[in-house]
Amino acid sequence: MSIYYKAPVRDLCFVIEELIGLQDYVGMEGVEELDAELVSAILEEAGRLASEEWAPLNSSGDRQGCVLENGQVKLPDGFIEAYKSFTEAGWNGINAPVEHGGQGLPEVIASATQEIWHGANMALALAPMLSAGATELLAQHGDTELQQRYLDKLVSGEWTGTMDLSEPQAGSDLGQVAARALPDETGDSYRLFGQKIFITWGDHQAAENIIHLVLARTPDAPAGHRGISLFLVPKFLVNADGSLGERNAVFCDSLEHKVGIHASPTCTIRYGDNQGNGAVGYLVGELNRGLNHMFTMMNEARHKVGVQGIGIGERVYQGALAFARERVQGRRPGGKESVPILGHPDVRRMLMTIRAQTEAMRALALVSAAYQDKALHASDSEERAAAQRRVDLFTPVVKAVASDWAVDSASLGIQVHGGMGFVEELEAAQLWRDVRIAPIYEGTNGIQAQDFTLRKVLKDSGETLEAVLGEIEQVVAELRADSVVSDLGARLKEGVGTVRESTRYLLENQEDPFVSLSAATPYMMQAGCLFGAWQLGRAALVARAVIERGGDGDGFYTAKLHTARFYMRHILPRVHAYTPAVCGGSDELEAIEERHW
Amino acid sequence: MSIYYKAPVRDLCFVIEELIGLQDYVGMEGVEELDAELVSAILEEAGRLASEEWAPLNSSGDRQGCVLENGQVKLPDGFIEAYKSFTEAGWNGINAPVEHGGQGLPEVIASATQEIWHGANMALALAPMLSAGATELLAQHGDTELQQRYLDKLVSGEWTGTMDLSEPQAGSDLGQVAARALPDETGDSYRLFGQKIFITWGDHQAAENIIHLVLARTPDAPAGHRGISLFLVPKFLVNADGSLGERNAVFCDSLEHKVGIHASPTCTIRYGDNQGNGAVGYLVGELNRGLNHMFTMMNEARHKVGVQGIGIGERVYQGALAFARERVQGRRPGGKESVPILGHPDVRRMLMTIRAQTEAMRALALVSAAYQDKALHASDSEERAAAQRRVDLFTPVVKAVASDWAVDSASLGIQVHGGMGFVEELEAAQLWRDVRIAPIYEGTNGIQAQDFTLRKVLKDSGETLEAVLGEIEQVVAELRADSVVSDLGARLKEGVGTVRESTRYLLENQEDPFVSLSAATPYMMQAGCLFGAWQLGRAALVARAVIERGGDGDGFYTAKLHTARFYMRHILPRVHAYTPAVCGGSDELEAIEERHW
Repeated sequence: MSIYYKAPVRDLCFVIEELIGLQDYVGMEGVEELDAELVSAILEEAGRLASEEWAPLNSSGDRQGCVLENGQVKLPDGFIEAYKSFTEAGWNGINAPVEHGGQGLPEVIASATQEIWHGANMALALAPMLSAGATELLAQHGDTELQQRYLDKLVSGEWTGTMDLSEPQAGSDLGQVAARALPDETGDSYRLFGQKIFITWGDHQAAENIIHLVLARTPDAPAGHRGISLFLVPKFLVNADGSLGERNAVFCDSLEHKVGIHASPTCTIRYGDNQGNGAVGYLVGELNRGLNHMFTMMNEARHKVGVQGIGIGERVYQGALAFARERVQGRRPGGKESVPILGHPDVRRMLMTIRAQTEAMRALALVSAAYQDKALHASDSEERAAAQRRVDLFTPVVKAVASDWAVDSASLGIQVHGGMGFVEELEAAQLWRDVRIAPIYEGTNGIQAQDFTLRKVLKDSGETLEAVLGEIEQVVAELRADSVVSDLGARLKEGVGTVRESTRYLLENQEDPFVSLSAATPYMMQAGCLFGAWQLGRAALVARAVIERGGDGDGFYTAKLHTARFYMRHILPRVHAYTPAVCGGSDELEAIEERHW
Repeated sequence: MSIYYKAPVRDLCFVIEELIGLQDYVGMEGVEELDAELVSAILEEAGRLASEEWAPLNSSGDRQGCVLENGQVKLPDGFIEAYKSFTEAGWNGINAPVEHGGQGLPEVIASATQEIWHGANMALALAPMLSAGATELLAQHGDTELQQRYLDKLVSGEWTGTMDLSEPQAGSDLGQVAARALPDETGDSYRLFGQKIFITWGDHQAAENIIHLVLARTPDAPAGHRGISLFLVPKFLVNADGSLGERNAVFCDSLEHKVGIHASPTCTIRYGDNQGNGAVGYLVGELNRGLNHMFTMMNEARHKVGVQGIGIGERVYQGALAFARERVQGRRPGGKESVPILGHPDVRRMLMTIRAQTEAMRALALVSAAYQDKALHASDSEERAAAQRRVDLFTPVVKAVASDWAVDSASLGIQVHGGMGFVEELEAAQLWRDVRIAPIYEGTNGIQAQDFTLRKVLKDSGETLEAVLGEIEQVVAELRADSVVSDLGARLKEGVGTVRESTRYLLENQEDPFVSLSAATPYMMQAGCLFGAWQLGRAALVARAVIERGGDGDGFYTAKLHTARFYMRHILPRVHAYTPAVCGGSDELEAIEERHW
C-alpha cells in the first residue's frame, strides 16, 4: 500500500514568507541568517525524514501498537530507530536555547516542522511534543542545578520528558490532584507516592532515561489548586557527573486500550514501590505554585495540539485526493465514460472542505507562532506585550478549531473513500481514529472555549479581539477594491459584523457567568471561522498580486484563490449559524431540571 | 461495566400516537386492533429483549469480532443465541405478510422496533435488516415457486438473506457489475461465477441457510445497468419438500477488517468452486431488470439506515448522560463543591445537541414510515400516490441526515466522556466507530443528496417539497399564535424561507446539471435541518397543549419543549450557513484544474 505523505513545504513556505514575512526575524537573536532559502531547505529536509522514515511506520505502528511486557513498554517495530534518526539530526531541539544544544530557531519554523512530524506519524510525534513541554517547564522554572543535570539531554532527545497531571479524579479539574510528595530528611529531594493516568509516552525504550514532570501535594499544603507543586521524577536517578544511577520507583502499571494513536504508549504511572519506598523527585520552581508553572507552558502545548490537527488534515487531504484520482466510478453528466471520482462535484466539495479547513488553520497557527516569536524577541516591550495578547487570544482557537476541524476532515476523508474508507486497509480510518484525541487532551475544546470567551475576550473587554477585527476590516477593504475578489470581501465583512455583534452581546451580559459559559463553544467556533477567513482573505490578496504580475507559473496562487473562494462560501457562513446560540442567554440550558434529562 | 440501553419507548409512543396518530390505522387491513396500549406493549417487549439480551453483547461482540475458520464464519459468543431469541419471539417478520408467517404490522411499528434493535446492538441488527431486504425483493419480484420455497423461512428468520451488489469495480456505479450467470441446460436455473465484496452477514452459523440475492449478467446481456439481472443463490440448495440439499458453490473467501461493527461479518463472496462449477442460482423477476427490481426495495433499506443512525444516537445520549451524571469534576460559577459535569453549561449543550438531533430525526423517520403505510394501504389511489411522493422525498433525507448526525452525535458522546471517551473501556468510542458506516452504505450520503435534489425535487418541479413547506407554514402560524413558543415559529419561518429560496435557485438553474450536483449535499442538509425543525415544532405544539391542560405529570412534555427550543436555536440556524454553497453555482468547483489539486 503506498504511503501518502509529502510535507506541504510549498504552502508552509507561502505562509511563512508571504503572509508573515521574514523581515521581523532579521537581526533577531540567534536567527540572523534566516531567509527564504534557509526556511525552505529546513522544511524540505524535515519533509524528507518524515516521508522516508516516519510516514511508512504510521500504519504498521497502528496495527502493532504498544505492549507492556514485564513492566516495560515495547514500542512497535521501527519506532526506536525512527526516533533516533530524528534526534540525531537535531530536530528535537529545533527551537531550544543554543546554550543547551538547541538550534535556537524561531517558533514559526518549529511549528512548521511539528506539523510535518504529526502529518507523518502522529503517535511518534507525541514523544518530542511531550518532551518539549517538560523541557520548557524546566527551562523556565527549574533551578540551575536541575537545568544543568537534565536540560541538555532533554534538548538533544537522548532523554524524553512526560507531563504527569491527570489522576482518576483530577482531569479537567487539576485542583483535585492527590499524589503526595514527602520531603526527604536531607531537604534536597522528595519522595513521591500516588498514581497518574493518561501519561503519554510514560514509558518506552527509545531513550535512556525518561524525565517525568509531576504534579503532587506536599504535607500540609493548602487544599485545591493552591496546594500543588511540581516535581521532576527521573526514571533513572542521575549522578552528579551526568551518568545514570539506580532505577527510581516510578513504574508503568498498565497501558490504555485506545481508539487511536495505538503506537503512542499511554500509561498509568505509579510512584512508589511495593516496599513502601516513594519515587525520588525534585521540586521544580516554587512550592505550591505547580499549577501556575504548568500554565506558563500550557499555551505552547495547546498550540501544538492545533498544529497536530493541521498535520493530520494535510495527510487526510493527500490520501483522499490520491484515492479520488485513482478510483474510477460513475460518469459526469453528458459523459459516456466512467471517470475518476475527482471529476464529481460532490467529491470535489469534500476535498475542498478538507483543504480549506486545513490551509486556513495552518495560516492562523503559523501567524500565532510568529506572534510567539515577537512576544519573546521584539525589541520594544509594548510590542512584546501586544504580541503576547495576540498569542493568548489565538491559542485556544488554534487548539480547538483546528482539532475539531481535523476530526471533521478525517471523517470526510473516509467518506471520499466510500466503502474503502471503513475498512482498515487504507489509512483513512486510522487518521480519523488517531486525531479524535486532539479535541480532548491539553484541555478539552470546551475548556478552550471557556478560556477564549472568559479570559481572552471578556476579561480584556474585547480589546485585543477588536484590534484583530480592525485588521480584518483592512483586508475587507483591500478585497473589495479588487473586482475579482470583491465578493470575498463582502462575505468577510459580514463575518466581522457577526462576531462583533456576538462580542457586544457577551460583554453586555458578562455579569452572568452562565451566559458566557453557555455561549462559549459556539462563540469560539464563530471566531475560528472568521480568523481562518481572515488568513485566506490575506492569502487571496497575495495571490491576486502574483497572478496579476504573471508570476503564477505553477498555478499555486490560482489554487490558493480557489481555496479562499471556497472557504468564503462553504465554511465562513457557518458564523451565522452560531449566532442564535451565542446570543440566546443561558435560560434554555439552565431550565432543564433533573427529570427532564 | 454497566450497559446503558433502555429503549426510548416513551418518545417512540409519543411520535406514533401524538405526532402521527393511530386513527389512520384503524380498519387498515391486518391491523384492526392497533391502539395505544398495543403499540406501547409491543415496544416495551422489544425493549426488554433489547436491553436484556442484545445490548449486553454489544461491547463483547466488538472486542471479539468475527473470525473466518476453515471457510466458515464464527460469530462472537452469544450472538447465535441472541438472534434465535429474536426470531423465536417473531420479531423478524414484524411487518411481513401474515400469509408467510409475518405479523403484518405497519411500517411505523416496524421502524420503531428497528430503532430499538440498532440501539441495542447494531452489528447484530444488521442480520435481520439485510434479510428484510432480500425478503422484500423476493416478495415483490419472485415467482410463486421461489416464494413458496424461500419466503416463509426468511420471514421467520430461520434463514437469513443477503444483498450481493458491490464488486471491486462496481460500488456506487452498479452498472459496472461483472459477475456472470450462465443458463443451465434445463433452463430452470443458472450457474453463477464471480466475486462480490462488502457482503453484510454474508456467512455465519446463526441460521440453517443463507439466501443470497445477487446481481449478475447473463451472456449477451446489454452492457451497463440495462444488462443486469437478479438471482437467488442459496448457501444450501433447497429440495422440493423444503428440506436442505447439498452445499451450493458460494463461499466466503475473506472478512473485511473494519473500523466498526466488528460483530457483523462483512464478507467477500465467491460464486463457483475450484473445479469450475458455478453456484446454482434462480432468476428473480425479469431478465435484465435486476437493477430496477433492486431499486424498488432501496427506499426501505435507506430508510432503515437512517433509523439505525437514530438508534445509535439514542444509545450515545444515554451513555453520555449517565457518564455526565456520575462524573464529578469542576465547580459551577459561585459554587464551592465539585459537581457532576451535567451541571456545566457546555456539557448540557453537547447532550442537548445529541438529543435534539436524535429526536428530530426519530420523528421525521416515523412520519416517513407512516407515509409508507399510507402509500401501501390507503383506500384512495390518489392518497396512496401522494403518500408515496412524500416517502420518496423524505427517504434520502432520513438516510443521509440521520446518519450524518449520528456520527456527529457519537463524536459529541466521546467528547462528553473526556479522556474516558478515547479509551475503549466504555462504549463511547465503539458507537462512533460502528455508526461511521451509515453515511457510506446503501448509497453514500452524496448519492442520497443527488437523489433528493435531482430526482425528488427538481424532477418533480419542487411540488412535493412545496406542499411540505406549506404544511410547515401552518405549524409556523400555530407556533406564532402562542406567545410561549412564538419565537420558535419565527425561526421556523426563516427556515422555510431559506429552503424555498434555495429551491427556487435550483429550479431556475436546473438546465445545468453541474449546478444541481454542486449544491446537492448542502441543499439536502438544509432540507433535513428544516424537516427536523418542523417535527419538533409540531411536538412543541402538542407539548404546549398538554402542559396547558395540566397533563405533564412526569415532565415529558416540558422536556420536549426544551428539546424543540434548543433545536430551533442551535441546529435549525445551520440552514442559513448552507445558502451560499447552494446558491453559488458550479463554477467554483468546476474551475479547479488538475494542477490546482
